[in-house]
Amino acid sequence: MSYVKLMERIGQVNDMLNAQSILSWDARTMMPHGGHETRSKQLATLSVLTRDLLVSDETRSLLDKAESEVAAFDASSVEKGMVQQVREAIDYHQAIPADLTRRRAELGSIGHAIWAKARAENDYAHFAPLMEQTVELNREMAECIGYSEHPYDALMYRFEPGETVASLKPLFARLREGLLPLVKAIAEKPAPRFDFLERIYPVDKQHALALEMSSKVGYDLNRGRLDTTLHPFEVSFTRNDVRITTRFYEDYMPASLFGALHEAGHALYEQGSDPAYVRTPFATDLVGLYAVSGVSFGAHESQSRLWENHVGRAKAFWENNFDVAKSYFPEQLANVSVDEFWRAINRVRPGFIRVEADELTYDFHVMLRTDIEAALIDGSLSVKDLPEAWNAKIKEYLGLDVPNDAQGVLQDVHWSSGQIGTFCNYTIGNVMAGQLFETASKDAGIAQGLATGDYDPLRHFMVENIHQHGRRYTRDELLVRTTGRKLNPEPYISYLNKKYSEIYGL
Amino acid sequence: MSYVKLMERIGQVNDMLNAQSILSWDARTMMPHGGHETRSKQLATLSVLTRDLLVSDETRSLLDKAESEVAAFDASSVEKGMVQQVREAIDYHQAIPADLTRRRAELGSIGHAIWAKARAENDYAHFAPLMEQTVELNREMAECIGYSEHPYDALMYRFEPGETVASLKPLFARLREGLLPLVKAIAEKPAPRFDFLERIYPVDKQHALALEMSSKVGYDLNRGRLDTTLHPFEVSFTRNDVRITTRFYEDYMPASLFGALHEAGHALYEQGSDPAYVRTPFATDLVGLYAVSGVSFGAHESQSRLWENHVGRAKAFWENNFDVAKSYFPEQLANVSVDEFWRAINRVRPGFIRVEADELTYDFHVMLRTDIEAALIDGSLSVKDLPEAWNAKIKEYLGLDVPNDAQGVLQDVHWSSGQIGTFCNYTIGNVMAGQLFETASKDAGIAQGLATGDYDPLRHFMVENIHQHGRRYTRDELLVRTTGRKLNPEPYISYLNKKYSEIYGL
Repeated sequence: MSYVKLMERIGQVNDMLNAQSILSWDARTMMPHGGHETRSKQLATLSVLTRDLLVSDETRSLLDKAESEVAAFDASSVEKGMVQQVREAIDYHQAIPADLTRRRAELGSIGHAIWAKARAENDYAHFAPLMEQTVELNREMAECIGYSEHPYDALMYRFEPGETVASLKPLFARLREGLLPLVKAIAEKPAPRFDFLERIYPVDKQHALALEMSSKVGYDLNRGRLDTTLHPFEVSFTRNDVRITTRFYEDYMPASLFGALHEAGHALYEQGSDPAYVRTPFATDLVGLYAVSGVSFGAHESQSRLWENHVGRAKAFWENNFDVAKSYFPEQLANVSVDEFWRAINRVRPGFIRVEADELTYDFHVMLRTDIEAALIDGSLSVKDLPEAWNAKIKEYLGLDVPNDAQGVLQDVHWSSGQIGTFCNYTIGNVMAGQLFETASKDAGIAQGLATGDYDPLRHFMVENIHQHGRRYTRDELLVRTTGRKLNPEPYISYLNKKYSEIYGL
Repeated sequence: MSYVKLMERIGQVNDMLNAQSILSWDARTMMPHGGHETRSKQLATLSVLTRDLLVSDETRSLLDKAESEVAAFDASSVEKGMVQQVREAIDYHQAIPADLTRRRAELGSIGHAIWAKARAENDYAHFAPLMEQTVELNREMAECIGYSEHPYDALMYRFEPGETVASLKPLFARLREGLLPLVKAIAEKPAPRFDFLERIYPVDKQHALALEMSSKVGYDLNRGRLDTTLHPFEVSFTRNDVRITTRFYEDYMPASLFGALHEAGHALYEQGSDPAYVRTPFATDLVGLYAVSGVSFGAHESQSRLWENHVGRAKAFWENNFDVAKSYFPEQLANVSVDEFWRAINRVRPGFIRVEADELTYDFHVMLRTDIEAALIDGSLSVKDLPEAWNAKIKEYLGLDVPNDAQGVLQDVHWSSGQIGTFCNYTIGNVMAGQLFETASKDAGIAQGLATGDYDPLRHFMVENIHQHGRRYTRDELLVRTTGRKLNPEPYISYLNKKYSEIYGL
């Protein structure tokens, strides 16, 4: 049966993609410095061979036959869904000429050094020619992939299938309307007490606390491990081996703790996918060529933000777990109340840097980047005018004057690798988390668990409704099945208003 | 030019083999327990795709053209050598039917569990049927590969090209003749003082000492790292990333120290290969499908044994480095003299277990296995009679009565994975190390370095004569170029007699 052979072929593609993830994880956590150059070649080879394997004549011939075999199956059957996803992916890859892929890879390989120099020397002019090429290549890419309304839609497809500039517009408008007044109101209020979070917290104890809290929310260490990197991340090599990292600052403990909880949230998604989907299209992003069970970047981010923020930064969480934190840091947290701790870890402080942003102001960093990317792609903004547009938005949203481009338009690594189309996922994740959490909390068992420090009911809800399905359903299908409606910002806006009103006494 | 394209193809094969090595290293050092099952599938896929890539029509067509292109080149040219090695490897793989490879892999996949049960329950009868199949499959393999005199020669080809049963016979005879009297003479003598090596040595300090000593002999940590495993090993992912592991026993410090020095010796070989050979046939075992620069298992072992034994267990080494060891372990080594330490780490104690054997008795464990394997393959020994033959040899060589098969014929993992043909490499490594060390020590600068604790001259000699060449020359070509003659046991026998006569006052 060709269907079985096609699935075995996709299993091999999944194995190759997981091998790439393992090589990347190793490069970021374990590899000695000298290994970089040859590791890049190894990754490039695996990447080329994986794509070749997926779009090979043999795979396509298997796909043709498998399509006939499942033609009579129910439209909602697993088999039909799997075959359909292979077809979509192969069509996607065949639409992009090899030459364009090559030019994009070449640009990516030189981009990082140019960007790093420009940022270090605060020299946007040094970066601009690269950015011109990046925009141009991404426009070409968009034309190859195709779109109905806006070329940027084609670029978002790899990361957030179905999302469009048209659908983001009202979403962003409503978020601005619902959250900007809150940001401005908080700016008028005194900051909560914060001194105790900047004391010295020994790194080995931070590691132990991060691990204990990650386990507590359900991260399975028999299928995982926690390491140290400059930028926290999660990566899975099938649901059986899902690793997370976090960063440690001796004088800023929340970075490691909430970094770990965030990544543990991602990890729960991967660990919770159906074992029957291992090595299948439902656990492989065949369009993005990445071995992942999460259905979109935004859906994935909904799980990390849910566990980091809705659970980990909630007052109830610390009413149940502050004693644990104090057992690791009795001196640092002496004379600190649960209430003070909770207010401190939720402090709002508008700043220039996205990756350092608090929960409330984060979305404004995202919205400005998404709007700018879309405008660059449709030509309504030129690369030359980019810094000015950036700085105007930061002023409008956060009331800040960007002092230089290094702290403005040059801060992110994304564009230097040639990548455009992925920022919106962060905000979609926040919105989706708000929506899922609102529905889940209505369940008495889940609410009771959150109040008493038992996170299994909430996790089971997520496994049942989101995790287990892997990539079978679209993000909005998952949302409709779970909450009764598509992506909707109201629960998220209301959650933030309620929480910050309490903290800042608004 | 097809030659260039062929080399780029071999570069991809090398990348894939290195990826497999990285996945294996990770599985042995970092992977959480739950990852085993899917990791096996990932490794199997990479293995199949790598072989397919090497023997594909496209590669063979490139090879045909490349052969024409280099036809007029000098026979000793790099280009001709590289093309020749690709040809030999492809011929080798094409000679082995896919069905045989599959059956062997299947046998390997069930073998470990059967062997582990047999060993745990000391039940040879449980293991014998598997061993029958293993012998049968290896006989089939030998017939496919081909040989002039003895079928076992065909099985050694993958590990020690050019070695034959006929060439091993006089070598082993001379070793027995030269070393058995020494073993018997030492058995009559009192053991040196040993108590202080069985004190408690904290593992973190053992790690620091092992790392410091490995660096001291030239192991480059910018291209390496030391981790912990049950069985020490070295693995390289090109010369730019060469990792070692060792094992730690709190109450037996020499295990970690000499384990690390042994693996550092292997690592020096890989780190010392010519940078120009990275990703080429001279840094890839295309027959064994393993990314390695060392030219044979025996040649590789010569480097580990040289640095572990000739350097690391020499009196002069400790005259220069005992203070370092004492700085880590001032209490454990209080009132211990350099001379006592040196004698203790060279204690001879015949035993049943190969991996625990001392420098002097190790070769007898190897010779008995090699002779037994050859006899099984040519049918002069039956699987049924194997334990009896084993025990008789242990009695003859070491004067010991094997108490049970778990400590006898069932002790090694090798046969359970279907592998026959690789034991002789350990002894060839010892013999080669003796020969190389004798030549090197005649150099005044090297001798001066060893006497004063400067290991750079010796290492440079090895880089110059052995390491840099990668797989360009055969083992015996290297030996003739360096020492003026092929493999010869006299320097090794004379080194052991001199050293142990001094230690045991013979």
